Amino acid sequence: MINNEVTKLLNMTYPVIQAPMAGGVTTSELVAAVADNGGLGMMGAGYMTSSQIREQIREIQQLTEGPFGINLFVPNEFHVSEQEVELASNRLQPIREQLDLQQKEQVDIPNFDKVSESFQQQIEVVIEEKIPFCSFTFGIPSKEIIEELKQHHIILIGTATTVKEAVENEKAGMDMVVVQGCEAGGHRGNFLSGDQESLIGLMALIPQVVDNVSIPVIAAGGIMDGRGLMAALCLGAQCVQMGTAFLNCEESGAHASHKEAILHAAEDETVLTRSFSGKWARGLKNDYINEMHEDESLFPAFPVQNKLSQDIRKAAAAQNKTAFMSLWSGQSPRLAKKQCVESLMEHIISETRKIGRKV
Amino acid sequence: MINNEVTKLLNMTYPVIQAPMAGGVTTSELVAAVADNGGLGMMGAGYMTSSQIREQIREIQQLTEGPFGINLFVPNEFHVSEQEVELASNRLQPIREQLDLQQKEQVDIPNFDKVSESFQQQIEVVIEEKIPFCSFTFGIPSKEIIEELKQHHIILIGTATTVKEAVENEKAGMDMVVVQGCEAGGHRGNFLSGDQESLIGLMALIPQVVDNVSIPVIAAGGIMDGRGLMAALCLGAQCVQMGTAFLNCEESGAHASHKEAILHAAEDETVLTRSFSGKWARGLKNDYINEMHEDESLFPAFPVQNKLSQDIRKAAAAQNKTAFMSLWSGQSPRLAKKQCVESLMEHIISETRKIGRKV
Repeated sequence: MINNEVTKLLNMTYPVIQAPMAGGVTTSELVAAVADNGGLGMMGAGYMTSSQIREQIREIQQLTEGPFGINLFVPNEFHVSEQEVELASNRLQPIREQLDLQQKEQVDIPNFDKVSESFQQQIEVVIEEKIPFCSFTFGIPSKEIIEELKQHHIILIGTATTVKEAVENEKAGMDMVVVQGCEAGGHRGNFLSGDQESLIGLMALIPQVVDNVSIPVIAAGGIMDGRGLMAALCLGAQCVQMGTAFLNCEESGAHASHKEAILHAAEDETVLTRSFSGKWARGLKNDYINEMHEDESLFPAFPVQNKLSQDIRKAAAAQNKTAFMSLWSGQSPRLAKKQCVESLMEHIISETRKIGRKV
Repeated sequence: MINNEVTKLLNMTYPVIQAPMAGGVTTSELVAAVADNGGLGMMGAGYMTSSQIREQIREIQQLTEGPFGINLFVPNEFHVSEQEVELASNRLQPIREQLDLQQKEQVDIPNFDKVSESFQQQIEVVIEEKIPFCSFTFGIPSKEIIEELKQHHIILIGTATTVKEAVENEKAGMDMVVVQGCEAGGHRGNFLSGDQESLIGLMALIPQVVDNVSIPVIAAGGIMDGRGLMAALCLGAQCVQMGTAFLNCEESGAHASHKEAILHAAEDETVLTRSFSGKWARGLKNDYINEMHEDESLFPAFPVQNKLSQDIRKAAAAQNKTAFMSLWSGQSPRLAKKQCVESLMEHIISETRKIGRKV
């Protein structure tokens, strides 16, 4: 089960993908270390400009000859009024004051056309730089984009949180699909199913998806070791994608205090919030989430709220105040270890072999 | 992994427990069929009087010589005012009208002392009838009760939804613990962790519990076949407890339309509600849940709300109206099959062996 269609297609030794975590976590060192240790490194490029993407690709290629891919955010149409932005900005003001931030200067509010244009530019770089694997979150790209990528023999990986979403990914031509359970840290990838309805545990989700699609399934959510990998394979997945486990590795770009917070957290200390970005995401509870909780439904849609809270997250990081950072984490923080990628991968594989002998 | 400490202690051929589903689902035929086919049958006796329990024990013993156990609800202290009861009753009135029910006659509202007394009587029957296995939901019984049961060599099984709750079960002297993931159908078993915080997917929950207790772990939630069983074992559980899969068996006492509804449901059609019983529980969305949703926080605590909605559930069943029944279901309805217990058990075991050969 360890060597299968997916490991062959993605050129991996082991069926382990490092989840693309946007916002600086997936450093070139992290992506390269994963590639060098038998897994697939993924650039979390959702927030990057095309030139930043090009630069990081070059950097990774300097570090490794191993396989790596890239993840992009499919733009979702959004409409945000000036009034909504002002309301949200006022609501964030007490947090700014706690961080000694000045009244927020005028922020360049993104609009859908700009976001779509930037996505198109990201796609062009992927093609020009011959990135062999491209995954998508928040939806399925247009027919035209899918065709263009396929003409360049790029393997396409969709994201789904329900059977319905997985089926749509297959219909659209995705070569495989990441199935995100409710356990997953960071942003929820649902795009057809409701926010509540799409919170399905992997134990239930994987077999139901596997029974309803013919493309390979990659399991994501709460998996951090060989036990999770073996369980996912038994359920019918061919590969796992792990976020929090890699976020906590020495090579990742996550804030040291973010890593430390995960190391001290319990499984019942994560929560879903849309206060950081306007999209629901799972992270460790902190003052920011608690203080914004009551009004989180008022915040504007992604990526506008993300832009509005940017100065707060930046200042919180600079001042080392975890109370106001976005401490993304899946539901297995107790399994996190302070280690390098090599040790994490070795650990997973030896544990997998041990379980294999017992089965 | 299939034969282990738990199968030995619980006298099972296979590590499969039929979940104790209260309210008439766990008929004597169901419990006996599970026992006769290598699993452990469980009486869902939470709502039963001591004489009803005694009667069913005798009935099951007529049907099988196999192993079976019993599940009881640990009483949680509650205080409900007359005003609350009236408010809730009024809120339920529009549903009653849709079922042509008369204005609710005076209901005998349970109080905590009575509930505790009835629990004590249930315990006495368990001892008198020499039931070898007793599991608990909604909390941990008192020291005195635990000691009394242990003196009679009854094996005690607790329920936990988080690591904290599992640890408390071990400390209290439970011999093993059922770990309920967020995928599970029916009532949530959390008693220390918050309602939201305790919604942990099994993929994350099992290994974290296993790492923090030394008693055996039984996995429950969304598991309906050999894939789920093998996954749970890989994660470190020694046994699974399955509800929905057995609820849908021919031998179960669930309403035919309840079974039919599950057979046609998708994984994103279940929802958590407290409108039926006053405790959060997972079931298929229907008119009752939708109509009560906005006010569900107003309903009185368990078991008062359960008593108040009893006539509605009864009438809905009699009139075959699934819109107003409590259609409990876990998150894997797509895996449900119309079959007998023998076929379900055979299927699980043959699938388990197939996976074992591939690993």
